[in-house]
Amino acid sequence: MKNIKIVIEYDGTNYCGWQSQTGLPTVQGTIERCLEKITWERMRITGSGRTDSGVHALGQVANFATASPLDAKTLLKALNSALPDDVSAVSAAEVSADFHAQFSSRSKVYEYRILNAPHPPALLRNRVWHVPEKLDLASMKEAAERVAGTHDFSVFASANITVRSAVRTVNRASVRKSREGIVLFQIEADGFLKRMVRMITGTLVETGKGKIGPEQFADILRSGRKTKNVVTAPPQGLFLKKVVY
Amino acid sequence: MKNIKIVIEYDGTNYCGWQSQTGLPTVQGTIERCLEKITWERMRITGSGRTDSGVHALGQVANFATASPLDAKTLLKALNSALPDDVSAVSAAEVSADFHAQFSSRSKVYEYRILNAPHPPALLRNRVWHVPEKLDLASMKEAAERVAGTHDFSVFASANITVRSAVRTVNRASVRKSREGIVLFQIEADGFLKRMVRMITGTLVETGKGKIGPEQFADILRSGRKTKNVVTAPPQGLFLKKVVY
Repeated sequence: MKNIKIVIEYDGTNYCGWQSQTGLPTVQGTIERCLEKITWERMRITGSGRTDSGVHALGQVANFATASPLDAKTLLKALNSALPDDVSAVSAAEVSADFHAQFSSRSKVYEYRILNAPHPPALLRNRVWHVPEKLDLASMKEAAERVAGTHDFSVFASANITVRSAVRTVNRASVRKSREGIVLFQIEADGFLKRMVRMITGTLVETGKGKIGPEQFADILRSGRKTKNVVTAPPQGLFLKKVVY
Repeated sequence: MKNIKIVIEYDGTNYCGWQSQTGLPTVQGTIERCLEKITWERMRITGSGRTDSGVHALGQVANFATASPLDAKTLLKALNSALPDDVSAVSAAEVSADFHAQFSSRSKVYEYRILNAPHPPALLRNRVWHVPEKLDLASMKEAAERVAGTHDFSVFASANITVRSAVRTVNRASVRKSREGIVLFQIEADGFLKRMVRMITGTLVETGKGKIGPEQFADILRSGRKTKNVVTAPPQGLFLKKVVY
């Protein structure tokens, strides 16, 4: 059996997230069905992690075992011919047997995109969070810096998480404005809790609106007490950019 | 009667172009129906010019006469509440009676976006032309420079044009690569013939593929003889960026 690693880009708008669910359109399920048509094998792929419904990926990573005689390059071509136009395979490579898309990952990079403009975004409508109120970028930058480091992130996680520990290490977290005027929040960490990036972003935007200061943002993280300013940003602005191995 | 100027952004994917056509979804028709609901008037708006089916706009301009007591700011808000999410009004202002979106325009800026990468663009699929073959940017830049100036552009126009003269003045034409790796062709001119930007772009891409050199590109323009290398780029990469008054 070969172990194949693939990098996947997808528009999450029309999917109920990454993970296979019976009877629902998912990215994982879509890729598995395409690979089954190509390899004639029963197929189960392992993703680096789940993404929520409506969340996008530029560099999701998955791996799968196959006895197919096709080489990685041919598989990539066949996969792109079979996939619907909102999912595409960026690359494919044969990797060593011990590579595991989830457990081998060292860190992940997410990007959250905010359109801070008065008018609704016709062209970017499923790609950004539209925040019409003027955001103070300096406060957001200052607050974002407080996210870096090792913390218990349970305050920025969905209430129903079942993980053993909510401690994660954030390598970097930053806010900047792109040339096109989009506010970008980038965060790299060794792991993420459910909704973590969306909850940090929503709370950063509360800071940008002046509802809380960077100090209060830091207090929320430090104290672990959920306040009304812990807001969850909508899914369509979130992109899984890269998985680092 | 007031004369109102509006700036419009739209995703052209689901429209049969700008111009109203009975029984077909058009951007103009969509805006007119929304304005009729707001003003209770029979509404006819004047656009700066048509865009083809599938072509987008970041800054299309239109104007219309109205006896509505609503001021421009209130009209803008009402219009954005009424419009579908793939069309949005960027701004609205009352202008002098002699302002005409088409005849008052001095120039227009178009941008054509090309994704030059091997894999299909899941996230940008209706926003770029996907060209997988490696493009030589230097040749494309050199050819694009030849477009500037006053020329008869009939070789880069749909065969069924009915205009009196095909002479247009291009103020600037340039090719560059964005930070995100998208090849951008920008062109500003006092007017454009039907399919002009798409045909120039398609022929520039032939140059980028090495099928013709920048000299041959210039020859095509100079001689006015349509060769097999005069190719029309698909609509989804084209954006009307700005109308200058």
